[in-house]
This record gives sequence, structure tokens and C-alpha cells, in this order.
Amino acid sequence: MSATASAPSTATIDAIKEKARRLSILSMMATTAAGSGHPTSCMSCAELMAGVFFYAMKFDPKNANSNDGDRFVLSKGHAAPVLYAALAEAGVFPDSRVMTLRQFSSELEGHPTPRIHGVDAATGSLGQGLSIGTGLAIGARMDKSPTRVYVLMGDGEMAEGQVWEAAEVAGHYGIDNLTVLADVNALGQSEPTMYQHDMEVYRRKFEAEGWAAEVIDGHDVAAVLAALDRAKATKGRPQAILARTIKGHGVDFVAGKEGWHGKPFSKDELAKAIQELGGGIDVPPDPGKSYERTRLPEPPDFPAPAAPDYDPAKPIATREAYGFALRRLGAVNPHIVAVSGDVKNSTFSEIFQKAYPERFVQGYIAEQNLVSAGVGLAARGKVPFLDTFACFLSRAYDNVRMAAISRANINLCGSHCGVSIGEDGPSQMALEDIAMFRAVHGSAVFYPSEAVSTERLTEIMARRPGINYLRTSRPKTAILYSKDETFPVPGFKIPRQSGQDRVTVIGAGITLHEALKAADELKAQGTAIRVIDLYCVKPLDGKALAEQITATGGKLVTVEDHWPEGGIGEAVLGALAHVGVAPTKFRQLAVTGMPHSGKPDELVDAFGISARHIVAAVREIL
Amino acid sequence: MSATASAPSTATIDAIKEKARRLSILSMMATTAAGSGHPTSCMSCAELMAGVFFYAMKFDPKNANSNDGDRFVLSKGHAAPVLYAALAEAGVFPDSRVMTLRQFSSELEGHPTPRIHGVDAATGSLGQGLSIGTGLAIGARMDKSPTRVYVLMGDGEMAEGQVWEAAEVAGHYGIDNLTVLADVNALGQSEPTMYQHDMEVYRRKFEAEGWAAEVIDGHDVAAVLAALDRAKATKGRPQAILARTIKGHGVDFVAGKEGWHGKPFSKDELAKAIQELGGGIDVPPDPGKSYERTRLPEPPDFPAPAAPDYDPAKPIATREAYGFALRRLGAVNPHIVAVSGDVKNSTFSEIFQKAYPERFVQGYIAEQNLVSAGVGLAARGKVPFLDTFACFLSRAYDNVRMAAISRANINLCGSHCGVSIGEDGPSQMALEDIAMFRAVHGSAVFYPSEAVSTERLTEIMARRPGINYLRTSRPKTAILYSKDETFPVPGFKIPRQSGQDRVTVIGAGITLHEALKAADELKAQGTAIRVIDLYCVKPLDGKALAEQITATGGKLVTVEDHWPEGGIGEAVLGALAHVGVAPTKFRQLAVTGMPHSGKPDELVDAFGISARHIVAAVREIL
Repeated sequence: MSATASAPSTATIDAIKEKARRLSILSMMATTAAGSGHPTSCMSCAELMAGVFFYAMKFDPKNANSNDGDRFVLSKGHAAPVLYAALAEAGVFPDSRVMTLRQFSSELEGHPTPRIHGVDAATGSLGQGLSIGTGLAIGARMDKSPTRVYVLMGDGEMAEGQVWEAAEVAGHYGIDNLTVLADVNALGQSEPTMYQHDMEVYRRKFEAEGWAAEVIDGHDVAAVLAALDRAKATKGRPQAILARTIKGHGVDFVAGKEGWHGKPFSKDELAKAIQELGGGIDVPPDPGKSYERTRLPEPPDFPAPAAPDYDPAKPIATREAYGFALRRLGAVNPHIVAVSGDVKNSTFSEIFQKAYPERFVQGYIAEQNLVSAGVGLAARGKVPFLDTFACFLSRAYDNVRMAAISRANINLCGSHCGVSIGEDGPSQMALEDIAMFRAVHGSAVFYPSEAVSTERLTEIMARRPGINYLRTSRPKTAILYSKDETFPVPGFKIPRQSGQDRVTVIGAGITLHEALKAADELKAQGTAIRVIDLYCVKPLDGKALAEQITATGGKLVTVEDHWPEGGIGEAVLGALAHVGVAPTKFRQLAVTGMPHSGKPDELVDAFGISARHIVAAVREIL
Repeated sequence: MSATASAPSTATIDAIKEKARRLSILSMMATTAAGSGHPTSCMSCAELMAGVFFYAMKFDPKNANSNDGDRFVLSKGHAAPVLYAALAEAGVFPDSRVMTLRQFSSELEGHPTPRIHGVDAATGSLGQGLSIGTGLAIGARMDKSPTRVYVLMGDGEMAEGQVWEAAEVAGHYGIDNLTVLADVNALGQSEPTMYQHDMEVYRRKFEAEGWAAEVIDGHDVAAVLAALDRAKATKGRPQAILARTIKGHGVDFVAGKEGWHGKPFSKDELAKAIQELGGGIDVPPDPGKSYERTRLPEPPDFPAPAAPDYDPAKPIATREAYGFALRRLGAVNPHIVAVSGDVKNSTFSEIFQKAYPERFVQGYIAEQNLVSAGVGLAARGKVPFLDTFACFLSRAYDNVRMAAISRANINLCGSHCGVSIGEDGPSQMALEDIAMFRAVHGSAVFYPSEAVSTERLTEIMARRPGINYLRTSRPKTAILYSKDETFPVPGFKIPRQSGQDRVTVIGAGITLHEALKAADELKAQGTAIRVIDLYCVKPLDGKALAEQITATGGKLVTVEDHWPEGGIGEAVLGALAHVGVAPTKFRQLAVTGMPHSGKPDELVDAFGISARHIVAAVREIL
């Protein structure tokens, strides 16, 4: 139902009140049936939810994630039951389905995930919803679409800095198709929230970010609807409807009381609560069919881009090749969008920006928002490429984790990995990013050593569903492959091999080039080694790797510009072990000491991953 | 020099002006000598730095990290040269030492680390300094100390949400011994900042958080000193001095110009710039001695706490035992401070709070600030224990990474690990935390399976320097050990062993109990297995593990409530490989599918880590 220009009629207000009552009751019933969950957190926002779903939003329950409709994000994910109740009342699935909440076999989980129609992204790690909404809203604006985005937040989660990253970005860009409803119920999980019911603090905070903000009584349906109308009419600024609410509203034994967070009612309490809310509702039996959203979005197909074209004699950094790759992809895939955390001149996404300024967003120094907004863009059908220094992606690890639970298709590029960045020192060196991105469900981890593979892997990322990570390096590196080379996933290249190879050395990025130097040096001394370019660190083909290592008598050296934990060495050992193979002799070269400033070559050598160390390790296990 | 009550004299102002000039020139000279670095980012804050160091701060250059003095945090770490110049001019080391900036052998790195006297924490990942300062200031307040804390921030980094987490916490608690100097030079790395020179936005943002805020011209020394005096006189609120500045101030060819971020001057440019700033300064030759801060703080010693005292027949969750452990430690170690991210009733730090309310801080839902404030508390000599759900520590991974570079002694407790949490679903399940914390330099990762080991490991954490992580579980588990049992680090326990053991099964946490069930079941069928409780996942004693596995014919099963990547399975394979041992047969049981809601037992079984799966894996490799 869409809003009318004039004030809502008494009949409309009454209808929304009844919807709110039903949402509260369904939330209470479902959590009592589940024996866990957060009924009081649902009751505080029932009128807000009813206002959004049954008055403000344009929403087709049969096509609930459509780009033609408005979008809703429940940032306070623990209020999932009230969202499920709203989706049920809207017709996405029957009310009875809400009663399967939190069961092993139900798609209605403890916190929302996109397994449900009408959910674009998983929530439950607090403070991420506004960023997701910002991404959805920016995507809609790029599409020149009338889509509006509504985000319901709790007050407890407004302590998260990420909320203010999203608020500042949305305010700065004047994203006026974005409305926040803040359910300020004054009670956190463990005690009252920081500002409790001091509504003016929230108003000041949003206004400081350039938002239109107003304070209302969140249980006064007429006020909620009027505020939603005003929000819709606001141009040039996002809008915050700051609703003073009561946790457990409407039921005396819980309303505004501490100690009820995440606690369902007993059956007796439920009966009492329902009576107090005006009596029960009919929930017809569950037809039992599945309402799972089985077709989750995949990245759109696109024609092959122009082949990369590099002078084979001219070294170029993989981080720079990434910029050229993006530009080439941008020419054939209109869905590609790049967002950078104020480092586009270091990660080289500025090459894409110069070609396609309308598809580039300056994300500023706010990495959590960068990643979660990417999830929103992906939910809009964009193919986001998000970049910053690899070490600063550690700032957004929770957002990446939640992106995986969101089944989001996002691409991350982290530049400046490892000690090979040189003088800037350890704060700018990513030494844990491989471990971090490997431990993400369904992720791929790409680590190219030169420009051609960087280009091809970037194209693969644009086609591959899930979380894709590209690790790029600061130093210039020699071109190793012809422009027609292909890079299967999983897969690796073998830039040095012969029938006489006595040891396999696996490297990637800067260490591959060190391994090649070591191979040359050893060859000059009469020892042949096999060198593997592990451009794809995850997934790994253990069987194919085992064949190579077995061919060199099981002798293996891995060398990585990364901590030893969770990186290339352990990944390879794990993949081999899964196919029942173990190296007969093994050396893992990795960064073990805390690095400091110095020239790239000095550091690569001092921290044990240079050609000299590879030669020594090979000799040890010959 | 400390501030006088009356307005500073012209002589004082002139002296500070000259100091500022020297700081600018030294910064330019050092970066030109290094061939890299950020001179223009130093020049914008030279007057602010001179004002803090030579007018406002109480600071003993011979004891620069003393709790008796004031403290300074350079949040915009890339302006390191101007900090080094200030420390040199204050007498911590000679000016000539600044000229070794960024060299391999110098302690003066590209971004500050506590290798230097006068630096309490590493910076360089932007937006963390205010949290560190908040921790230092809260620690001083706990000590009833007159210490004031000054934090210099850049405007680019004020886009980081963490800044506003710290600002809200400091404002909420009225931390009035904390002063921010914001160097608003309007230029980020890649383009102008979000708000450029719109100073009123910053004022509104800080005022919304309850701060005293004022806008000044950051190059007007009299204004800087007056603002510092007013800050010192402000009671009940933290203070923000918002300084409008020019990047590259004082030198025409760079002042306020884009394209100069992170770019040193050529020798000719340097000469021209120095001339424009009023001529060169004398830098006597470097005496060449080391100024390294070799004695970094260690956690203070304390007497043994009372032994844990549990009814061996009564299961208790490790998360709850953590609360009891903290309380027992609190009785014997007055330096222990607990901070919780609004989950003290789930992580059980509320048990400590009830006993020692003056040493507990409610950190609200702001995990980045939680961890960085912990670094500040540690720099003040506190022994911080920081808790939230383990999955939400992924939100603070960058802060943990920087804590390691800070050589900070902090303890983190993450509760609710793995699928065994049950109904809440994947957003609340930590499945990557072992990978994440293993890949932290010098970290220890503890994963107790029951209450007694939880208590003993918590005590070990309070004594161990570096980053210590404790992974606790939600379900109640049986007590396995007597209260006198000791838990060496590295080390493991062998709760099931015999001379007939045919397979070694390694588990921890909930999976250890599944392994014990499997052992019982297999024993009933005539097959003996060895079961290892890997309470310490990092560091690992590969040799000791290899002995056990060799004793069972090299047959090994690892089982973990974690993704396969970077967890227990890979850690064990890595440790074995380093001592030249590989399992002859191996099965890794870990969570491979995306979990969903369900009962704990249902999920542990459905995701392949229950006793049934262990029995099957053992049978496969018998």
C-alpha cells in the first residue's frame, strides 16, 4: 500500500494498529513456541514495522526482492520474529510459518538471512543494516529507480561506529531515498543503553550528519504514519525517524523492565500477554510447504573483455594491473561498481573511476561501511569491487563474515600485502589477510604474482558467486604469462619444471619471483627445482598439488609474505592431507618476526622469504 | 612546561612558534632523507604539536611513558616525523636521530610504535588513537591520577566509525582528562575530505557526543595555547580543539594543494621550503647510540588466587567459569580491569563486576573501541580483560592486529563459539576466531573444554605478555579435571589413553566431549582410541603432539567447532610438519556447510562434529 498525499484516515490508522497488534502477538507466540528469542525487542517496534510494511512501502509479496519495489533492512536482527510476522501478514508466507521460528528445518532462523523472500542481507551482527541500506539506496540511485529503502535500527546498536560511518556517507551524498526508523527502547542486552530515552542526543547526532531527523512516539500509529509521509516528501537528505518506544510495549509485566532481553514468555505468560493486547489471533494450520528462497542472486553474465595488453619487458605492480582490469571489465559489464576507502590512487581503482565516474563511489576511510554497503549494492544486482589496503580489510572482517551469511556476491581487493611494502612499517602490512579470507564460508582467495594473471583473476571474480578476495602487491613485478593464458579455479601454474626437479617450491606474489630467482641460482649450481605459482590459494586442488610434490620426491618448500598461521603453507598441508599425501620433507618460509620499516628488498630478506632463504631451505631438504 | 593560569606571554608564544617551525623543518628534512613519508601531513599540525609538547603537557623526557606524567597519542600515525621531532626537541633523543627515519636499522619507523620512548601504542591504522587515549584516560581516572591525555587526530580519519565509538564513550562517562586536537587540513590521501573545511560539522558532531568543542585557527599559536588552557580548565566533559589547518602549511608550492599526500620533497624543493620557513636549523651529528625502548611493559606479578572450586558432578559452561575466574583473580590482582561489549550477562564478566564494580567498565556495543581502549588501559599498567561474543571480535580484528604491533598485553574472551550455540543462528556463531587469533603475532589461543581449565588458563592470561585469547562455549560441559591440575603452555591433556590406542583424536571445547563419547562407544566395541584435549591451540608443541600420534600408528582425527581453514586441524598439521612428522592417515572434522538455527545437539551432529561422526572417521582410518 502506498502513502496518500493527505493525512491518513482514521480507518487507515485503525487498520495499521490492528496490524501492529498482530505482529506483536505473532512474535510472542513464535518465541514461546521456539523456547528462545526476543519477544520484547519485537514489541517495541511493532507499530514502526506495521507502518513501514502496510502503509509506506511499495512491496510485491510475490517478488519481494525486486528492484521495482521498495526495500527493507532489519538492522536489529534479533527482532527477526516481527519481520517474519510482517512478511507473513504481507502474504510472503502464511502466518503459521512464523510458528516454525528457530527450528532446525525452518528457513525462519533466529536472525534473518536471505533464505527468506524479502530479506536482502543477513543481520544479527548489530550496526550493519544502515550500511546495507545505504548500498541499496545508492544502487537504486545509480539505476535512476524510484526505490526507497527503509532501515529499522535499535538504539543499542547505535553505539556501533559503523552506524555513523553509514550516516555520514548517506548524509554527505544526500541519499534521500533512505529512511531510518530508530526503535529507541532504552534497554540494551545487559543494562540500559547509553542515552536511554534522551531522544535529543540522537536527533543531534543525525542532524550533525546532515540528515532530516524528527522524534516521535513510536507507539502512536498516527505519528508513525505522518512521519513516514514526511520522510517520503523530503528531498536532498536521508531521513531519521527517531521513535521513543517501550521494550515489551503493551504488556505490563515486561514493558520497560530490565531482565527480559532475549527471553521468551512461558505459556501462561503468553496467555496473559495476549489477553492484555486485546485477545488472540487465528493462525490457520501450516500447509507445510517450503518458502525457502532457493534461487539466490548470481553475478550477471557478460561478454569477454578485451585481452590484457602488457609489454612483456615492462614490470608492473599487480595493484596497478587491478585498475586496468577493472576498466576493461567496466567496458563490457555495466553492473560493475567500484568503491574505494580513500586509497584509489594506491589501489588504482582510480583508473576505473576515470573511465566510469558514474559507477565509482568514494567510500572514504570507513572500511566497515565499505564492505556492508557493497553487500547492499550486490543485493541491488550490482557487481561491487571494494578496495583498500589489505591490512585495513581486517577492520571489516565481521562485515565480510556477515556478507558470507548474506550469500552476497562481493569482490574485495586488498593492496600492499606483506613486508614487501617497505618503509611504511607493520601497521600498513597485511600479514593475516590470507588466513582471514580463507576462513570465510565459500570464499575464493586469489593472489596473483604479475599483471596478466591479475587481469584474468579479476574477470573471474566478476563472474564467481560469493566472497572473492584479490591480494595485490605494492612492488612492480615482471610479466610472466602471455595474454592468452588462462587461470582455472582451482588451479596453479608451473613456471619452472623439468624431469630432474628434486624439490617443489610454492610461492605467490612477491615470493614467486624470489622462488624463480632461487631456481635460477640452484640451476646454475646443477640443482633443478619445480616452482609453482599458487595464484589461487582457495579453493585448492589437493590431488593436482600432490602430483607435483610427489614428482619431486615429496620434498616441499612453501614461501609466503604472510604469517605462518592460516596462510599458504598450512593451506597446502591441509589440501595434501585431505588426499592422503604428506610431504616427505617440508620447510615453511613465512614472516615470523614482527617487521619494521626498511626497504622492500631488505625486509623480504630480513624476514626470511627471499631467494637466499629459499635456496638454503631447498639445500636443507635435498 | 605546564600552562600558566593567565594568558601566555608574547615570549612564550614566540618560543612555541619557533618550536613549531623546527618541527616542520625536521619533518621535511627527515622525509627527504628517507625518500618517503608524509611531510605535508606534519606541517599542518606543527603548531598543535608544539603547543601540546612544549606548553600543555607535563612530560618527563627521561621517563616518557610514566604514569606520573601526561600522555600523548598520535592517532594520525603517518605524521610520525613530527612526533619524532617533538620527542627529539623535548630531549628524548637528539634531533639527529630523526634523520634516521624509516631506515632498516632505526627505531624511528614509518608509523610510530612503542619501540620509541614516549609512544604508548602503535598507530597507522587510522581512527584508533582516540580509543587508546580513552583507555589511558579511564585508567588514570581509576588511579585517581592527575594525568591528562592528549590525542592528535586527522580529519580524514574522523570518517572512521571507531572515532565516534570512542567519542560517545568518553562523552558518556564525562572523561574530562582527555583532549582531542583535530588537525583539519581538508585533504585526504586521494582527494579532499568529506567535510573539507566545514568546521561546524565537526563541532556539531563532538557536541552531540557531549564534548566541549571549539574551533580555532590551527596555525595561530596564541589561539592554540589559549584553547589548550581552556581544555585543561574544563570539568566534567572531554574537550575537542578543532583546528582549521593547511596541509603543507607555510610552504607555498605545497600548501593546501592536492597530490602531495605521502610525498617527500626533493633536495631542491627542501632547500626552497626551508628558506620559506625562515631558514635552516642546526642538526648536530648523530652520536649513533640506540634509543630503543627495550624494556616494554609486562603484566605485573601477583600471588596465586584461590583454587577453583567446582562440584565435579555439576556441569557448568566455560563462559560462566570465566566469570568466576575473573572474580578470583580480581581478589589478588588489583590491576585487573574488565570491559564488556554489553554482553556481561552472557560472557559472565558480570560476576567480576558485582565483586569489583570500580574495576568494571560497560563498553556498550562498540567492539573496536573495546579493544583499542584495552590497549590504552594496558599502557597505563592495567591488565584488561575484554569480552564479547567471539564472532563479534571479528569486528575488532584490525584493533587486535594493531595491539600486537603495540606490544600490548591484553586479554580477550570470546564466548558463544561455533554451531553449538544453537538457535540464534550463524550470525552469532564464531567459526573463524581460531584462524583469526592464531594469525596474530605472538598471540596465545586458549580453548578450554571445562571449568577448571578455564580458570587456570584465565590466570595464565593475566600473567602472559602479548595478546591472549580465550574461546568459551555456551553449553554446559562436565568437569574433567581436579582443582589442582596444571595446564602448561604450550601443552595438552590426554583424558583417554591406553597401550592399545589405535587412533588419536584431538578435540577442544564441545568437540572434546564428543570425542570422549566416541571413545566410550568405540571402547564398548573393542577399539581403544587416544583423546587429546587441546586446551592451548597456540603455541603448539609439535614434538609432544607427534609422540602421541606416532604412538597410535600415525592415525589422527581432529574435530573442531570451527571452519576447516586456520583452525585446530591445520594448526596440528603445521606443528607436526615442522618436526618432520605427518599423520599416516588423517581425517579433519570441521564445520563445512553454512549453519542455520537449530538445537545445539542437532547442529553439532548435522554439521559433522558429533560423536557419531568421530566414530565413523576413526573406523575409516583404522
